[in-house]
Amino acid sequence: MQSFEIDKSDVFKVKNAILAGDETLKIVLEEYHASEIAILFERLDKSEQRHIINLLPTEIASEIISEMDEESHPENLLFELHPDKRTEIVEELDYDDATDIISQLEDHEQKEILEDLTEDHASEIRNLLTYNEKTAGGLMNTELICVNINLTKKDAIDEIIRQSEEMEEFYTIYVVDDDEVFKGIVSLKDIIKAKHNAKITELVKIDAVYVHPDTDQEEVANLISQYNLTSIPVIDQHQKLLGRVTFDDVIDVMEAESTEDILKISGVSEDEELSGNWVEAVKSRLPWLIINLGTAFLASSVVRYFDPTIKLIPSLAAYMTIIAGMGGNAATQALAVTVRRISLYDLTDKQAYRTVLKEFTVGLINGAANGLIVFIFAFFFDGNPMLGLVIFLAMTGNLVIAGITGAGIPLILKRVGIDPAIASSIIITTFTDVFGFLLILGLASKLLL
Amino acid sequence: MQSFEIDKSDVFKVKNAILAGDETLKIVLEEYHASEIAILFERLDKSEQRHIINLLPTEIASEIISEMDEESHPENLLFELHPDKRTEIVEELDYDDATDIISQLEDHEQKEILEDLTEDHASEIRNLLTYNEKTAGGLMNTELICVNINLTKKDAIDEIIRQSEEMEEFYTIYVVDDDEVFKGIVSLKDIIKAKHNAKITELVKIDAVYVHPDTDQEEVANLISQYNLTSIPVIDQHQKLLGRVTFDDVIDVMEAESTEDILKISGVSEDEELSGNWVEAVKSRLPWLIINLGTAFLASSVVRYFDPTIKLIPSLAAYMTIIAGMGGNAATQALAVTVRRISLYDLTDKQAYRTVLKEFTVGLINGAANGLIVFIFAFFFDGNPMLGLVIFLAMTGNLVIAGITGAGIPLILKRVGIDPAIASSIIITTFTDVFGFLLILGLASKLLL
Repeated sequence: MQSFEIDKSDVFKVKNAILAGDETLKIVLEEYHASEIAILFERLDKSEQRHIINLLPTEIASEIISEMDEESHPENLLFELHPDKRTEIVEELDYDDATDIISQLEDHEQKEILEDLTEDHASEIRNLLTYNEKTAGGLMNTELICVNINLTKKDAIDEIIRQSEEMEEFYTIYVVDDDEVFKGIVSLKDIIKAKHNAKITELVKIDAVYVHPDTDQEEVANLISQYNLTSIPVIDQHQKLLGRVTFDDVIDVMEAESTEDILKISGVSEDEELSGNWVEAVKSRLPWLIINLGTAFLASSVVRYFDPTIKLIPSLAAYMTIIAGMGGNAATQALAVTVRRISLYDLTDKQAYRTVLKEFTVGLINGAANGLIVFIFAFFFDGNPMLGLVIFLAMTGNLVIAGITGAGIPLILKRVGIDPAIASSIIITTFTDVFGFLLILGLASKLLL
Repeated sequence: MQSFEIDKSDVFKVKNAILAGDETLKIVLEEYHASEIAILFERLDKSEQRHIINLLPTEIASEIISEMDEESHPENLLFELHPDKRTEIVEELDYDDATDIISQLEDHEQKEILEDLTEDHASEIRNLLTYNEKTAGGLMNTELICVNINLTKKDAIDEIIRQSEEMEEFYTIYVVDDDEVFKGIVSLKDIIKAKHNAKITELVKIDAVYVHPDTDQEEVANLISQYNLTSIPVIDQHQKLLGRVTFDDVIDVMEAESTEDILKISGVSEDEELSGNWVEAVKSRLPWLIINLGTAFLASSVVRYFDPTIKLIPSLAAYMTIIAGMGGNAATQALAVTVRRISLYDLTDKQAYRTVLKEFTVGLINGAANGLIVFIFAFFFDGNPMLGLVIFLAMTGNLVIAGITGAGIPLILKRVGIDPAIASSIIITTFTDVFGFLLILGLASKLLL
């Protein structure tokens, strides 16, 4: 999420400053925060980006790179820098940010970067690279403020000041024992407020929430959100403190998960970048459309089967598109509400059952209401009350099917461990198309011929 | 977002403990964090909730109420408590949480609660109630840690300790001058690390990001996310510090905004509560379905117009459902990607233009690919290459229209200041239905008859 509004004038100013020479450029860039330059980068070409990164002090250059949007591919910019500059920047980056960026590169590129680093940096990043990107291990930073539980107030403050030299921000102080086993957390405020001779062991909060490195990122985000935490500790199976995940990483995760939900229920592969080019978009969407074509053939075979009926009552061709279309939209409504609800809350079996029952009721009422409108239309326009009845029944039936499948299918998928958002509108509308055509054409064959 | 997994056994245990008596209940409840009890409340009935709130100390009771999901309606629980208990709880709540909850009540109920409060509390909450719920003013808390810029290190620490007695958490210390004008922020860490005789004026960061009370909540969320802030100050037009919005409120805002996007593009009113009952769901969705019915009639009138053509070539009835259905799904794909992109980023005119161009290209390629499959089918199955050609052209044309409208309509809406997500799949599929039918039936009339 980016809020700094880039004017054309900003881009123009920076591009001109690049031409005007480094002294001018430095002065112009001083007006911007690193995260703003990261956004400006979206409008600059690769060589301009490199020029700016090479010009600025490593500290700012690394901040820009860490703030760049994933879709702007900071890893490519980083890789194409002079190896010395590259090494400087990687060593300046937080371990988790460096790992995130490097993980996007090919194996041989990763190796090339890691070889130039000091052994400490390289081994730390190599270690972080082993964790799945979408787990607490993949999100965590190993840099944190940590004090021994046996320290006194004064020693703890000295220790915190010493450790914080290297860190720009910290929110929570972690407490461990002599074996590096995680014991709890303590706030800087509580240490300061404590009596002069207080010990950390008296101040530590021992019931702190924590996660393991293989905890799914969605679970990490849920915990941070539920307990309003600025950071959450990551500990291994022996209770040793490995790192922490901070709230800002979680904000990014939540954004990405919501994007995934929206894309998936709309039949777009979750990997499609929002600002990707047409090649990516075709790759991501064509497979879904071809699946949809298959299901559309299935639905159209129902229509073919009833060709003789349509030939006798041509207005059925018009009405059947209404029934199928309405069913598709009602199913999409039920799907969106249910998928989002599953994403945000865990539903018990009873709640799942009630959800389907609710959508059944909603389908029945909305179906009858719309069915009545179409009935009146058929009565006055086509002058055929029996045709009206057929359409009324088909509409009601199809909207009930829409409700049951729109809510039921994602709930079943969740139950068997599949991402419920995969039950995209493409899958759901297959049911409403097939049953919609079956209902109207089948009923018409029985009641009107 | 809630992560604590409620077992049936938890609910069972608590319900039993209520029956067993208050002593047992107290012991059972001690096992749970307040935010966990808030989730348990979703499974308890109103009288059980009241029983627990009355039993627990005010501090915990108020935390439970502040952690309850909006959809569990904490305001009703609060209002139905004994007035004394209610007053105790409201006075214990943070001002912003109290305001959020009270704002959900009817005017006369609000009045009744506010009358019992101390004048300080009542006027603070009355003031916060005046701000729009979806702005920085509506989200902000007036309790914060604030020091005068002229203080010395020692006096500042004393002041911070004094002010923090009342506050459980603070992340940033705000700095003001003698006129309460906002000057910047300072971190507790920097104060502690400073030399003994340092003054706040030497430590303050003056380029802090801030917002005004009428800043939209989405903008607030964007700034907190962009600059990785734990909190952001809210100042009035005279630069006076009014309050702060914290990251945890913003996490809730982002979740709500994403839910809104998902519901709207699926044709569900943004006000529908995910766990609402069927009455709410009907109210929220029926109007959209009736709009859809109107647009479906429009599309079906195209079919009616070509009734004679369909009568002559009945297989067109089957193929036209495929063309319209594929167009609808392709449009939904383009819509989802575009709406989400507009939500997360500001697009320039040039980017908007390029987006439509990209979707045009994607529609052309996906349309031709799927058109070819249908052509081959028509060739072998119906033995009619000219019919195949008609379908190929209609498919390609309709998927191009899907791309242009799916991307173009939300971009135009954004441009004229309307929420782009309102361009729901219901609106977009009108175009693909009408043009889909027009293309296949019109081309068939020209080329096949």
